[in-house]
Amino acid sequence: MQSKISDTEAMSRCLELALNGSGSVSPNPLVGSVIIKDGVIISEAWHEEYGGLHAEINAINKSGLSSFEGMTLAVNLEPCSHFGKQAPCVDTIIEKKFSRVIIGMKDPNPLVSGNGIEKLKKAGIAVEVGILEKDCKWINRFFCKKMETNFPFIVMKVAQSLDGCIATITGESKWITCEESRRRTHILRHECDAILVGINTVLEDNPILDTRHIGNIKLPTVIILDTNLRFPLNSNLALSSTKRKVIVVHSSDNKERIEELASANINLIYVENMFDLKNILELIATQENLISVLVEGGSHIFSSFVSSNLIDELHLFVAPIIIGNGKRTFSTVETLKLSESYKLRLVSSTKSGTDEHIFLMK
Amino acid sequence: MQSKISDTEAMSRCLELALNGSGSVSPNPLVGSVIIKDGVIISEAWHEEYGGLHAEINAINKSGLSSFEGMTLAVNLEPCSHFGKQAPCVDTIIEKKFSRVIIGMKDPNPLVSGNGIEKLKKAGIAVEVGILEKDCKWINRFFCKKMETNFPFIVMKVAQSLDGCIATITGESKWITCEESRRRTHILRHECDAILVGINTVLEDNPILDTRHIGNIKLPTVIILDTNLRFPLNSNLALSSTKRKVIVVHSSDNKERIEELASANINLIYVENMFDLKNILELIATQENLISVLVEGGSHIFSSFVSSNLIDELHLFVAPIIIGNGKRTFSTVETLKLSESYKLRLVSSTKSGTDEHIFLMK
Repeated sequence: MQSKISDTEAMSRCLELALNGSGSVSPNPLVGSVIIKDGVIISEAWHEEYGGLHAEINAINKSGLSSFEGMTLAVNLEPCSHFGKQAPCVDTIIEKKFSRVIIGMKDPNPLVSGNGIEKLKKAGIAVEVGILEKDCKWINRFFCKKMETNFPFIVMKVAQSLDGCIATITGESKWITCEESRRRTHILRHECDAILVGINTVLEDNPILDTRHIGNIKLPTVIILDTNLRFPLNSNLALSSTKRKVIVVHSSDNKERIEELASANINLIYVENMFDLKNILELIATQENLISVLVEGGSHIFSSFVSSNLIDELHLFVAPIIIGNGKRTFSTVETLKLSESYKLRLVSSTKSGTDEHIFLMK
Repeated sequence: MQSKISDTEAMSRCLELALNGSGSVSPNPLVGSVIIKDGVIISEAWHEEYGGLHAEINAINKSGLSSFEGMTLAVNLEPCSHFGKQAPCVDTIIEKKFSRVIIGMKDPNPLVSGNGIEKLKKAGIAVEVGILEKDCKWINRFFCKKMETNFPFIVMKVAQSLDGCIATITGESKWITCEESRRRTHILRHECDAILVGINTVLEDNPILDTRHIGNIKLPTVIILDTNLRFPLNSNLALSSTKRKVIVVHSSDNKERIEELASANINLIYVENMFDLKNILELIATQENLISVLVEGGSHIFSSFVSSNLIDELHLFVAPIIIGNGKRTFSTVETLKLSESYKLRLVSSTKSGTDEHIFLMK
């Protein structure tokens, strides 16, 4: 006989399922759900794509059952109680007569947080909240930050030498890190809503910024910070504008260039102050409904994000080489005293091919 | 009934025992030895201090037996066949009538390598060589390098920020890394025969270079590269010259300074070319019988060792901070092309308190 599944095991399974939606559901959260009858999972599902059915409804539909008396529904995020792209899940859960609902975490949106739970309880359903809460918050850290602060989660990725150089003095940077590190970078691109780079990176490296190392499932939106509209129309990024969104943020009044870029399907955003990164990100995140942005360089951009204290997460891919007099990763960060240095917290460090992948959080 | 010990298990135990001599036996190798009777270890010992009895003899003496017929002696390094500080171990092993000897690795000294094994075989003893050979070579990598090349093993230790800074632009470096990293540094000091620093480090940091975080078991010899004899007699290092050897390498003809330093118990070594690190190290290693040197800084010294291709092992203690415009770890290393960068091999990376300890080898 199979042993009965515990609440923690059920939630752990919900999280596994939820992660299947990575790269497909944003700006929605990652959600997985299972239905338990007599201690055994009889149906499981996840939120598969943005605008599609929610995980709970998918699990209900997949079960083939019409009533769920005596059964438990497990889900990593509080079921919605408001109309969005879909009808409220709590209404369906009540209607389907579930006896018990276990929930990983409350909805982080302060406007609706707890409402779904209240409604379930009022309908006489036994509700338990906070199972594997830390893990639930972790997998939806992009979503949570956006809901709580209305600001996107900022992931920074750096490929550098042991001594903090992202290129030689002559600008050679391909490839400092190994293929496995590039593959991991493509996973980060897949997980984030947009990639942000500076115009110098476009001019110097002519990057493609795709996810080819993991099968090019999607081409992420690209944001280029380009004060004077130097963005070349024959660059790889400009040429990809038919296949994905390319956004150029500028402070230029050069009407000719503006028209030229606009007619090449480039989205232009004018800002008065290119140094106000916070404002720029708020603007784009709202306009494009982004919950996460991956910052990929170069040195000036990396430095500006540090100086503006905007990093949530830093992925440092460190190649086992010494360059010495090369281009520094954070060339324009000014620190006079050690106590004023920009401090992060080491989360983990793993071997990435021949490199070391150091993962830090603010 | 106890199960019989395998040759690999016996050798593994020899290695464990050998490491007890770390910091005490140099320039001798680390050696452990066990005696096996009927598949069970009946005696075990290690080479405890420089000039003391060898591990095999210690194990024989500790057993209290006078004859070892039918028994096996295990030792991680080929027993010596020549007179050094002690009589040849092979003669005693033969005299004590051991039936079998298992050996981790041959003596790395090309002049005597294999002689001990030959002598044992000629005496009718069954000999097996090469058990856990890789591990045996690893624990004695300092000794092996010195024997094979007549040059000391160079360990470099760097404490830096994520972006390769060893200090702020104003020179503040205490403490970039955490206490656990400093403790690990003191272990490295304990394991190495001498510590090498540049005069700028002495003038800027006035370091003590002791092993207080692990109980100050020994004060390592200190080598200071100081072209113009700027070494201050009131520095912590100068004041420690009564308790340990302090060597200043210089190119100065300032007789007054030379006398001043000499009378303060400072050992002076004159060289014509301060840039010829290889020559300097060869000179000191021979004179002082050193098999390993720990290079602790600063930036100019680190760079010179990289440019001279003299690093065997690099311990990079990386604090989770960004400094930006600070003093670079390898400030004067010149690299134009990525293909010309100084390449190392990542051996391991571990959490060291709040820092990451990246261990690399050439």
